[in-house]
Amino acid sequence: MQSLIKDYVVKYLGGSGAEVPLEALDDSAVIDDIVFKSDSHTVKPLFFPGGDIGRLAVAGTVNDIAVMGADPLALSTGFIIEEGFPLDDFERILKSMQAACLEAGVYVLTGDTKVMERGALDKIVINTSGIGRRSPWLDKNLEEVRRHRTLNSRWLLDSNLAPGDRIIVSGTIGDHGIAVLSSREGYGFETDVRSDVAPLNLLMKEILKVGGVVKVKDPTRGGLANTLNEWSEKSRTGIIVSEEAIPIKRGVRVACEMLGIDPLEVGNEGKLVIASIPDKAEKILEVLRAFPVGREASIIGEASSEFRGVVLHTAVGGRRIILPPIGDPVPRIC
Amino acid sequence: MQSLIKDYVVKYLGGSGAEVPLEALDDSAVIDDIVFKSDSHTVKPLFFPGGDIGRLAVAGTVNDIAVMGADPLALSTGFIIEEGFPLDDFERILKSMQAACLEAGVYVLTGDTKVMERGALDKIVINTSGIGRRSPWLDKNLEEVRRHRTLNSRWLLDSNLAPGDRIIVSGTIGDHGIAVLSSREGYGFETDVRSDVAPLNLLMKEILKVGGVVKVKDPTRGGLANTLNEWSEKSRTGIIVSEEAIPIKRGVRVACEMLGIDPLEVGNEGKLVIASIPDKAEKILEVLRAFPVGREASIIGEASSEFRGVVLHTAVGGRRIILPPIGDPVPRIC
Repeated sequence: MQSLIKDYVVKYLGGSGAEVPLEALDDSAVIDDIVFKSDSHTVKPLFFPGGDIGRLAVAGTVNDIAVMGADPLALSTGFIIEEGFPLDDFERILKSMQAACLEAGVYVLTGDTKVMERGALDKIVINTSGIGRRSPWLDKNLEEVRRHRTLNSRWLLDSNLAPGDRIIVSGTIGDHGIAVLSSREGYGFETDVRSDVAPLNLLMKEILKVGGVVKVKDPTRGGLANTLNEWSEKSRTGIIVSEEAIPIKRGVRVACEMLGIDPLEVGNEGKLVIASIPDKAEKILEVLRAFPVGREASIIGEASSEFRGVVLHTAVGGRRIILPPIGDPVPRIC
Repeated sequence: MQSLIKDYVVKYLGGSGAEVPLEALDDSAVIDDIVFKSDSHTVKPLFFPGGDIGRLAVAGTVNDIAVMGADPLALSTGFIIEEGFPLDDFERILKSMQAACLEAGVYVLTGDTKVMERGALDKIVINTSGIGRRSPWLDKNLEEVRRHRTLNSRWLLDSNLAPGDRIIVSGTIGDHGIAVLSSREGYGFETDVRSDVAPLNLLMKEILKVGGVVKVKDPTRGGLANTLNEWSEKSRTGIIVSEEAIPIKRGVRVACEMLGIDPLEVGNEGKLVIASIPDKAEKILEVLRAFPVGREASIIGEASSEFRGVVLHTAVGGRRIILPPIGDPVPRIC
């Protein structure tokens, strides 16, 4: 998938010279101080414990814009629907999108609806694109970083990390992917595990107010393993995290063990991974824990110049290299 | 389809209070002086005489932004691909998108690529979203309109027409829809008929420079019949057009007769329908005809207070009411 994007999409469509262009492969692009993002949602099943494709579509795009240091301004929705898709289900999805938009304080402004003949599409897919404006808190936040070291970027980018930066997660990882997988395959784990899908732009604003935030990412496809590897590669710094510090729900841990999946590679849709300067990590943790969605937030590690790549301190005292996931262990979760 | 959008999508997702909101159902939305649009493309076949899904995806969004009176600034692309889709075809589509972007002077900034398992999707669909900025020529253009009558809108909107406005088409209609249909069904008309799919933002700029343009639309789904009915309804004015003045290629006319399709209802992707104040219609026609894509441009009628709805003066001297198309006579052409 990564090579499909790099060797094909970026090769032919890159080269804009925008402030944050396609080839940065960051959470969103930036041009002319507008943050811009697009996501297609093909999740299966459409309704799963804790959410549905509509909530996912809104949260996914809102979060990708917010983690750049921007306030989402508007969304678009492209519905592609298989002929014969039940109107009741479509209405349920729309109501869920409406609720998620209210939660995020954002509106759908434009869109497109297409119907494909029976058999040409598995039920429905939703594309959500979004635009955002620079957060009024971003400049002050970055000033706080620059009080401690140089930083050229005007936005929260994957390439912003430096050795010493702390790595924080806003809560338990893997919930979304396991909830969707279990619900699809009927494994039964969904009694314990619910998707965490949620728009996090309001939480993001509170974190920016603290200051000293270097980069934030919502660990979707490829999960935490992918997030940390992208940061490590683009920022040219090692990252070390502690297995014991990474919050994982018991149900997710059990499911992953039984299915032979690494929970670090399982996607979320309602969590943030945050890199901050050391001085501010504790304060950010405190702010996160004040929110219900951030109650289990944890400082899990730091960027380090001692090595390259991503290293995990295991619970039994060893060290393990965390590679970027090859393929997706759980397909169609977003 | 219209009722699916109005009774469901707009009902739940409208209400933003944006300058041009979702419920305006205009070519694009406007918020905070950013023009924003999203389209999903499901055309079948993917490659057809005169174009392909990639060129269509770029031109469709570029044109929807340009007709509001804006310069397209950036695009996003959401690819959803069926597992096993030939990489050569994907590369061919990307090359075509790259060429169309160059032609339009616009870049893809962001996007998303998803793969669905075999059988879950008919080959590939592409969502394109785009953002645009107010054209530097728009204010002067609207001043010219206001020299003749009041106009409250700051943009080119479907609701801007007033009796007396001239209606101009930039060339022959129905080419795209018939080319796609014929190629899909193997009717053989494609030897004469090629799709007109093209980005028209540069042509649009030249028209705006003339001044006095009230609204422009690219007549895609539902063709010219739909465009004129939307204008008539939203502007609360009658529109009368002359059958003899509407340019239609011989091959399109023959195909429509044989298939029992009204060419006025067949979609295009490389034509503009323009409403202008009477004084400027001839000058706009002259500018259009200076471009290869506008050689067959024609003034086809005018807005009128004498009746409601859309009326066609037929070639044999009668009058016929043109209703909004019910359903799409040619599905999956965009």
